[in-house]
This record gives sequence, C-alpha cells and structure tokens, in this order.
Amino acid sequence: MQYIAPLAKLIEHFRSLPGIGAKTATRLAYHILDMDVEKAKALANAIIEAKEKIGFCNTCFDLSDTNPCKICTSENRDRSIICVVEQPRDVGAMERMRDFKGLYHVLHGTLSPLEGIGPDDIRIKELLNRLYSSDVKEIIMATNPNVEGEATAMYVAKLLKPIGIKVTRIAHGLPVGGDLEYADEVTLSKALENRREI
Amino acid sequence: MQYIAPLAKLIEHFRSLPGIGAKTATRLAYHILDMDVEKAKALANAIIEAKEKIGFCNTCFDLSDTNPCKICTSENRDRSIICVVEQPRDVGAMERMRDFKGLYHVLHGTLSPLEGIGPDDIRIKELLNRLYSSDVKEIIMATNPNVEGEATAMYVAKLLKPIGIKVTRIAHGLPVGGDLEYADEVTLSKALENRREI
Repeated sequence: MQYIAPLAKLIEHFRSLPGIGAKTATRLAYHILDMDVEKAKALANAIIEAKEKIGFCNTCFDLSDTNPCKICTSENRDRSIICVVEQPRDVGAMERMRDFKGLYHVLHGTLSPLEGIGPDDIRIKELLNRLYSSDVKEIIMATNPNVEGEATAMYVAKLLKPIGIKVTRIAHGLPVGGDLEYADEVTLSKALENRREI
Repeated sequence: MQYIAPLAKLIEHFRSLPGIGAKTATRLAYHILDMDVEKAKALANAIIEAKEKIGFCNTCFDLSDTNPCKICTSENRDRSIICVVEQPRDVGAMERMRDFKGLYHVLHGTLSPLEGIGPDDIRIKELLNRLYSSDVKEIIMATNPNVEGEATAMYVAKLLKPIGIKVTRIAHGLPVGGDLEYADEVTLSKALENRREI
C-alpha cells in the first residue's frame, strides 16, 4: 500500500520511536489527522520546545531546563547523600517514590567492556569531582540490577573506598506484591541471602 | 514527581494519543530528549506537514493531499465498483491487500441511533450523488462486522435497491489461520451458514 506522502512520512517517524510498531505508528498517524489542528500543532511544539529548553545540569547531569537543576539548588535536600543512577529517567523513578531527599548523579550509561564503554565514557570523573568539593557522606549506587549495573556499582565502590566515603547498594529481593512461585532463581537466592530478622 | 515543565508537557501530549499510557508516554518523551535535534524537529514538522497538506478528497472522502485523490483520478481503477468503508484507515487496509481495483467511498462513521448518529451525519448522501452521475454497477459494503457496521450496510442496501444497483457485503467467517476452537459462536455460526461447495 502506498500511503500519501505526508502520511507515509509521519508513520515512518512514529515507527522510529521505541516500542512503536507498524500498526501503532499507523494508528497514531491517523489519529493525528483526526485531531484539531491546534492540538496537533501543540504536540509538535511540545517536541521542539522540549528539545530546545531542556539540557543537562552541570552538577548532577540530570535533564533540566535550568543549570544547576532544581534538585541541586533546592534547600530542602540532604547534601550529604548522593544517589547514583544510570539515566535521567531513573531520577524520575526515584522521585516518584518521594522517599529520597538527597541529591542525584546521573552516569549516562554503565561500564560495558563488551560494548567498549569504559570509565571515561560515563560521568564517573564528574562524580569524583563533586565528592572532593563537598561534604558527601554516602553514595547510594542505584544502577540497574543487571550485570553492567552491578559491575558499575562495584567499580565506583572500589574507587571511593580510599577516599573514606560510604558506598551502599540498593537491595535486591522479591518485588513487593510479587509471587515466590514466579520469581527467578537469582532473585530468590538474593532475597534469601539478604534476609533480615523480624 | 514533578517533571520539569517542558518534559511534563510533552508527556501529557503523548498520553493523549490512543493506546499510549503514562509509562509509554514517559518513555517516548525521554526518547525524544535523547534524539538528535534534527530528528526531533523532523518529527515535529512531519506532524505539522501532515495536518497542513492532508485534506479530504471531495469525491470519495478519503484522506488525500490532492483533490480529487489519486485513486479517484487513476485510470487503472475499475469505475463500476465502489467499496464503501467506515474510515480512511479502512481504505489503507483494503489497499494493503492489493486485490481490489475499484473505487472507494469513506462514510466517516456508521449509523448509531444510540449515539445519535443518523444517515445525515455520515457521507451517505454524497454516495448517492456519485451513483446518479456515473456508471456504478456494484457497491461493496465493507463496513466493520459489528452491530453498527451491519446496520449501516443494510440501510445503504435498502436505499440502493430501488435504483437497481447491486449491493454486496464482504463475507463473514473464520479468519484464515484462525482456530475453530477459539472462534466465537456468532462467527462460527456465520461460517457455517455461508459454507460453499468445494
């Protein structure tokens, strides 16, 4: 089927987005054509605006429309704890929890020798610089619980031990609401290993 | 979690699209921020361009960037058959099949007394006008196989009988590759009713 050119182009653009296949892309494109012109233009402008207004905070490297970002400049945050995450979206996940009141540091990746990503390719140096010039007492490594995330957490921990800063790792175990029967072996083994007295 | 304003706005826009929930919208928005500026702007422009360049063909009421549309003006199409569909996306579905060589007519809806949609609210009058001024011999009703689609097909059929135009309905039965065991009763009953000698 030959779609008319502007429609085909729009479908192609939607298809290039993550998790959007041919069917969804087509449905989205037809939906755009069904929309009010104003709403469609507002969507287009939101995309352009987000790209133009959002950059990185030069302290924590989270996405921000100010520099330094709101979290880094906030007076209500505990400056002695830094939570290290892989991606800006992880800051979003942590903030949704509303429990963490420290600062963040976004690495923008994980160590991955297979893909040729070494310590200089992610924001580890910038993390060290922050530690030298402030009173940080604890670094929480909240990288993802997979091979690369673990390796990155271990690497940073070894790097910071000599400086005398406490490095902690978020816990592994069964997700709340999860089911023992469906847990994978590694998670179950971690849950058993990290058992606590109640 | 308070996302920074331009990001929150973009997420909200994505959420308003069909089939996009909070998680997907967030992932899409972060993906946009990860993209090259040029690619993001190209996506925004594709949206605006599609809205500005695409209108309706005044003959068949399919979406088109020309008027009349390419199908209506094509010399390779059989002008004696018109396939009547509900939505422009249905023309897309028919064209993907590559089997149908006639013309189309898009109703832009179906009769639905419950929702107050009567014959004057969809493009039935425009269909009749096309019939008076051309040599159409057959109308294929390809509205969806649900209550509204069937009612619309029956309504158009009754309307066209006196004019002496053949009105046909696409077949109901088991989908190819389908499984008898999982077919619903109505489909199975239709498949049995419409059995053919082999």
